[in-house]
Amino acid sequence: MTRGKFIVFEGGGGSGKEKLRSRADVVYTRAPGGTPIGEHIRELLLSNEAADMHPRTELLLFLAAHAELVERVIAPALTEGKLVISNRFVPSVIAYQIYGRKQHGELTIVREALRFITRGVIPDVCVFLDASPEIAIKRAEGRAEKLHRFVKEDLAFQARVREGYKKHIAEFARKTITIDSSGTPEETWKKAEVALESFL
Amino acid sequence: MTRGKFIVFEGGGGSGKEKLRSRADVVYTRAPGGTPIGEHIRELLLSNEAADMHPRTELLLFLAAHAELVERVIAPALTEGKLVISNRFVPSVIAYQIYGRKQHGELTIVREALRFITRGVIPDVCVFLDASPEIAIKRAEGRAEKLHRFVKEDLAFQARVREGYKKHIAEFARKTITIDSSGTPEETWKKAEVALESFL
Repeated sequence: MTRGKFIVFEGGGGSGKEKLRSRADVVYTRAPGGTPIGEHIRELLLSNEAADMHPRTELLLFLAAHAELVERVIAPALTEGKLVISNRFVPSVIAYQIYGRKQHGELTIVREALRFITRGVIPDVCVFLDASPEIAIKRAEGRAEKLHRFVKEDLAFQARVREGYKKHIAEFARKTITIDSSGTPEETWKKAEVALESFL
Repeated sequence: MTRGKFIVFEGGGGSGKEKLRSRADVVYTRAPGGTPIGEHIRELLLSNEAADMHPRTELLLFLAAHAELVERVIAPALTEGKLVISNRFVPSVIAYQIYGRKQHGELTIVREALRFITRGVIPDVCVFLDASPEIAIKRAEGRAEKLHRFVKEDLAFQARVREGYKKHIAEFARKTITIDSSGTPEETWKKAEVALESFL
């Protein structure tokens, strides 16, 4: 059987990604999360209690959730020839945990750790939904599920996250497509559909 | 202020370690656990739900708990000149997650990850409470809090854990003391007290 395709969306939320869910052969997932253990970890990361955990602890919890997702969902689905679409994946670790949290000195070991957990599972295409830090903050604040640790971060944090994506996203995907997501979700989604035509 | 001392007990449970709790200047902790986040992670590792998580996920959850413990408890207490005693610490990662789970190919990167989380916080002495795999299983089964994922492991698992400790424990402490813990907790504790005289 032909190996499936793996598409990752990174960057802003609220961009109509959920439209793809309707396709029967699509495995739609999210990171952190997407597995029983991963969802528990996500919950822990979302909790107010987690608000002052050390950046290194946060990083390792994300890695644990991603490792489980690779082993239990993504890799098996690709082997079965399915299309896997994930709302975020490992590039967000570089963007948020390294750039956002200003842990630049840890980039080398984190890169190695990401190789350790992905075991060669690389997105065929990573769609970077790019918007200004101002828009990113506004959207994060409007989301139903609030990632307390991240929503409360300031404009400078969002600007660093964007910088992290721009500098490193290409390392973690066979192909990267950057889409301006400053418009409505419908507009963004139309652009994504055109760009992804050969994959969908 | 003089830096405090750091003592780690590894190996079997039920050896009377709790006697040290009564000393006011002792920070007594445990790994995984010892912090709010770490105790949540411990709970997750203890849950039945966690029974089939991937070994790599398990490993990263232990690392996350240990990282938080180093940053929030051990390092600050040592800076304040206190005596820190931990029931297990990083050597158990090698013993259980590498040897127990037969992930020997990951030893190098896990060693590096342990350096990454400990940031030079090394036990002054690590007391290895050594008992046969048969005794280890019996004691684990009798414990009030059952680490489901570990209690159910067989004699071969316990033998590998012991081998992991014996081969690698010296890498993770300034000094290692091995104590035969096959007797009663009182007997074991008496031996430990004599061996630790210069530290207590």
